[in-house]
Amino acid sequence: MSRFWSDVVRRLTPYTPGEQVHMPGLVKLNANENPYGPSPLALAAIREAAGDGLRTYPDVNGTALKDALAASHGLRREQVFIGNSSDEVLAHVFQGLLKHELPLLSPDISYSFYPTYCKLYGIAQRTVPLNERFEIDVADYDQPCGAVILANPNAPTGHALPLADIERLLAMHPDRVVVVDEAYVDFGAESAATLIDRYDNLLVVQTFSKSRSLAGLRVGFALGHADLVAGLERVKNSFNCYPLSQIALAGAVAAVEDTAYFEQTRAAIIATRERLTGDLRALGFDVVPSHTNFVFARHPRHDAMALLTALRERAILVRHFRQPRIEQFLRISIGTDAECDKLVAALRELVA
Amino acid sequence: MSRFWSDVVRRLTPYTPGEQVHMPGLVKLNANENPYGPSPLALAAIREAAGDGLRTYPDVNGTALKDALAASHGLRREQVFIGNSSDEVLAHVFQGLLKHELPLLSPDISYSFYPTYCKLYGIAQRTVPLNERFEIDVADYDQPCGAVILANPNAPTGHALPLADIERLLAMHPDRVVVVDEAYVDFGAESAATLIDRYDNLLVVQTFSKSRSLAGLRVGFALGHADLVAGLERVKNSFNCYPLSQIALAGAVAAVEDTAYFEQTRAAIIATRERLTGDLRALGFDVVPSHTNFVFARHPRHDAMALLTALRERAILVRHFRQPRIEQFLRISIGTDAECDKLVAALRELVA
Repeated sequence: MSRFWSDVVRRLTPYTPGEQVHMPGLVKLNANENPYGPSPLALAAIREAAGDGLRTYPDVNGTALKDALAASHGLRREQVFIGNSSDEVLAHVFQGLLKHELPLLSPDISYSFYPTYCKLYGIAQRTVPLNERFEIDVADYDQPCGAVILANPNAPTGHALPLADIERLLAMHPDRVVVVDEAYVDFGAESAATLIDRYDNLLVVQTFSKSRSLAGLRVGFALGHADLVAGLERVKNSFNCYPLSQIALAGAVAAVEDTAYFEQTRAAIIATRERLTGDLRALGFDVVPSHTNFVFARHPRHDAMALLTALRERAILVRHFRQPRIEQFLRISIGTDAECDKLVAALRELVA
Repeated sequence: MSRFWSDVVRRLTPYTPGEQVHMPGLVKLNANENPYGPSPLALAAIREAAGDGLRTYPDVNGTALKDALAASHGLRREQVFIGNSSDEVLAHVFQGLLKHELPLLSPDISYSFYPTYCKLYGIAQRTVPLNERFEIDVADYDQPCGAVILANPNAPTGHALPLADIERLLAMHPDRVVVVDEAYVDFGAESAATLIDRYDNLLVVQTFSKSRSLAGLRVGFALGHADLVAGLERVKNSFNCYPLSQIALAGAVAAVEDTAYFEQTRAAIIATRERLTGDLRALGFDVVPSHTNFVFARHPRHDAMALLTALRERAILVRHFRQPRIEQFLRISIGTDAECDKLVAALRELVA
């Protein structure tokens, strides 16, 4: 504590990101990073952008990227908001669209950054418990609220809601913003982006960090009604007019356009996930059915933290959340087949 | 207005950045961009970073960049905060360090983003008029306040305070944060960074957008007591844990280390500024003595907006602020000698 801090700084509980460890031969399955590199076309575009033009400010509206995203989702430019990672986009969403008199509803187990944003912006939050299968039941959201946010697929469970459930939620709260955080949607869930022209209260948030393999570049975006996007633009232009570098804009446009690479790598990850799920079940793990690039698993006879520690000694990192209901689970990112084989071999020894 | 917007969005007055125009042969002197490209070593580092490693998250602490900045300013890593442009750094500073019960003091004429941040975070602001020579008089700041922020050199005037005045201000308010925004300091003013070890209430903010010629990369930083930096880290880790891409970190480190290129280009800009100042005065302009990469000038017989419009028709962009006291001034960024010669030739015709 310092006498110079604003009150808000005193009450903050900053987010804890996945541990960053550098050791030779490390199998890093703790941050839901993509095991394959970014699109070679994206890398070429980044190198191309590294020239004297960097002396000037980027396009303040990021038009090229908005147009690429609009085209790929069948939307108009005015329905696209872009930011320096989906975390920044979410921050603006919380401040600009989710702060109301009534509390924000969100699942009790979800992306652990949500309560952090609520503290940062003084937003009242009410959590809605997942059901006993760790699923969101949208009927539980039929209560007075200022807005709703949920992740679909949810993290760290990996469970996905069908689009019909998202529609029920949108129709249940026509005067409330419903944010669907789709960080992992490309790994097997249905995107709600197809509903945007029918529901003016829907905002979909996505990222380039997972399925586009550009966590190191920092690009995220939101799709929704032009009025919602206009509200976010007002916040963005009161915070930082140029959140995306010329490099990020160029790389992201090329990544969106390289659909072949995108399809190939996400298919590989999905195939590895299904294989890993089978292998873990064969070792006795309970595995939540996943529509993401990670699996959420517990072993009925082995403590999660003990497993995590033993894996770490073998240079394999996975993630654990010290949180009620899920403290016996491990969240394991999908690596290459070879990485997942190493994990399974290690676990086979540990749970034998 | 939308029924979905939070109250804060309704009351915002977003910042208006310098106009972005693309036309052949344009002389763009409206955004204080550096006329020379970035360090070739920075560009090489960016290209080098454009590889498969982008699939992973950047270093959450940006340690390499903090260490480079600490070394170049004779400080410790804990005294350095980094962000996605100095605008983002300033946003966190306003929210985390400048929001108190008493109002924030700042000059009436200064960086026009400051009042925008105040609206975004609900900060009471009291402006202190510049004196009749458009200078900050620190004696005017001897009044109760929650904190102080000023730009040194100031923008858009270009005037710089001597370090002794910054020290008077720091000693005047030992229990209040004093932020010195040094976006333009490398063009001829004294940095207050040398005072950091003696004043725990001092925070210095700088950018890579001007003297480092990396406006397109988006990197800024703050230097100050470790407690101030710790407060900013709490805000940052409640907003976006990874504000700087791997690319931005790599390019910025190389830019800091390339001191030869930095010295050479800033010397060239200073020389051009002095020449332009002389040329403008020869045309009858009043020019505020500048310690930045721009000049602030008015002509006693020619309306500023009329001049700006006539220059624009000649594909020369300069900036104007529709604001009391300065509406007859033009802010002209320092380009290359050739660009400034074009400007002077055009103005010679216009004011003849």
